[in-house]
Amino acid sequence: MEEKILIFGHKNPDTDSICSSLVKQILNNKNGYKNSKAVRLGNINKETQYVLSNLGIEQPEFIEKIEEGQKVILVDHNEFNQSIEGIEKAKIIEVVDHHRIANIQTEEPLYYTAKPYGCTSTILYKEFIQDGIEIDRTEAILMASAIVSDTLLLKSPTTTEYDKKALEELGKIANINIQEYGLEMLKAGTDLDDFSEEELIKLDAKLFEKNGKRNVIAQVNTVSIEDILKRQEKLEQTIKKEMETKEISLFVFAITDILNSNSEIIVIGNNANEIIQKAFGKKLQNNRTFLEGVVSRKKQILPEIDKNI
Amino acid sequence: MEEKILIFGHKNPDTDSICSSLVKQILNNKNGYKNSKAVRLGNINKETQYVLSNLGIEQPEFIEKIEEGQKVILVDHNEFNQSIEGIEKAKIIEVVDHHRIANIQTEEPLYYTAKPYGCTSTILYKEFIQDGIEIDRTEAILMASAIVSDTLLLKSPTTTEYDKKALEELGKIANINIQEYGLEMLKAGTDLDDFSEEELIKLDAKLFEKNGKRNVIAQVNTVSIEDILKRQEKLEQTIKKEMETKEISLFVFAITDILNSNSEIIVIGNNANEIIQKAFGKKLQNNRTFLEGVVSRKKQILPEIDKNI
Repeated sequence: MEEKILIFGHKNPDTDSICSSLVKQILNNKNGYKNSKAVRLGNINKETQYVLSNLGIEQPEFIEKIEEGQKVILVDHNEFNQSIEGIEKAKIIEVVDHHRIANIQTEEPLYYTAKPYGCTSTILYKEFIQDGIEIDRTEAILMASAIVSDTLLLKSPTTTEYDKKALEELGKIANINIQEYGLEMLKAGTDLDDFSEEELIKLDAKLFEKNGKRNVIAQVNTVSIEDILKRQEKLEQTIKKEMETKEISLFVFAITDILNSNSEIIVIGNNANEIIQKAFGKKLQNNRTFLEGVVSRKKQILPEIDKNI
Repeated sequence: MEEKILIFGHKNPDTDSICSSLVKQILNNKNGYKNSKAVRLGNINKETQYVLSNLGIEQPEFIEKIEEGQKVILVDHNEFNQSIEGIEKAKIIEVVDHHRIANIQTEEPLYYTAKPYGCTSTILYKEFIQDGIEIDRTEAILMASAIVSDTLLLKSPTTTEYDKKALEELGKIANINIQEYGLEMLKAGTDLDDFSEEELIKLDAKLFEKNGKRNVIAQVNTVSIEDILKRQEKLEQTIKKEMETKEISLFVFAITDILNSNSEIIVIGNNANEIIQKAFGKKLQNNRTFLEGVVSRKKQILPEIDKNI
């Protein structure tokens, strides 16, 4: 039997790592190389789950490590510390990537295609075109999903003209409305419906002390601030209970819209209004306010609160 | 003024490193990127001199080191230890190479195109085709010369189908007879006419002692064993003088045909005939004999002599 070549993206795989592995397998197949197989190095996230179940495609097989001399193709990464256990002794025959190059070494010459684009699938899209290989609906949706994911629907600063062009063309091939599909996909990835209010406020909460008082800034990512705000009343009750139990004097709950790069914050505490007024020049109404262009807790929220507390 | 991007191959540049730098500059120009400039990291060898003077092209400028942040394109190498002083702090925006990958690290994503072909220019040839850029006579000859050099006129074991195809097409574009041109070029590279007999026998001579006796195996590379044999009489006189002066008991002078992978050896010494008979199963005639398939002193000549001396 012909030796299998394994194709995989990085550990903690995102949609680009999974979709580009599957697409590279399809491209190889169409080019006559039938012995390559997409696998994955970790759990599939909710966003990727949405993509695969929509297409009725099974998850690639999970693998934990590889044997010496195993032939592999790396997509969406090249650094050995982001790759599989045993990669140092594998035979890397090809890399398709859009990251910097570092911590990679091979014994033999190989195929290496990197471009500074927003997404690996944009590079693969160009390979289909160059090779004159037809793109079917399945691979069009896989590649489009990867591009939507990596570029946050072309809004990330890493987006290039090539990503825009590829996404537009892939949308046509797949005959889907990219805006609608992309939003649904990103939404699925940030789907918080399964979480209780108590889980939500603890999902990503940072505690900091100042002047002997304990303060918390919690953050959730979403594509629909509104969806979360529907639960404001219950969220506030939960926050207040948490504050009593843990003796917290200020609680900031930031709901960050990853698509439009804004946040809505719900703030509970004795001097909440005064602090937010000084920190952001905005008044709380119904315990909340909108912070335009604010997405980073570390760089944009914490320093302002910390200064004015 | 627009910032210059420097293009260069490895240190001790061969014909592929020089020609591919020049061709990459031409390709960039034709693609609208007018600000890149081929340079070289070392002296031009005789073979490359032949190529450039035939085309009436000046040598690229020599550079010794580069400043921090200098934008560069690497061709025909990627390892920092084969590159220019200061490469660690340069901004590598692109690599076109046909070697293994190692000892390279960048801060930012980049263009990286490697293929396991026999020559960098074969990759560049494919880029012209992919980009739909016309190949003029000059760049056709530059690329053809690089392929002839790296693959020894398609005879090296590193030769791929892609090199063969590219060389054939480039020969047509340039309207030259590749066999004739290639032979002349390789000949120019191994041109030993400038060397005296004394220089020839010392050019690459290895001394080894055995049983208290001193023995020498010298080697020269050529594309025409005949050319060197025209000087046999003078060579023998010079060898004998050298043997007397330096108290050498056996002198093997190997003339290696790099194109056909054979050697002719001239052997002088008391037991020369007996030793060569035992070592290679061949008799010396007129102090010399032909060794088919023998090219490596280290692996094929020295061990046999050493065993039978």
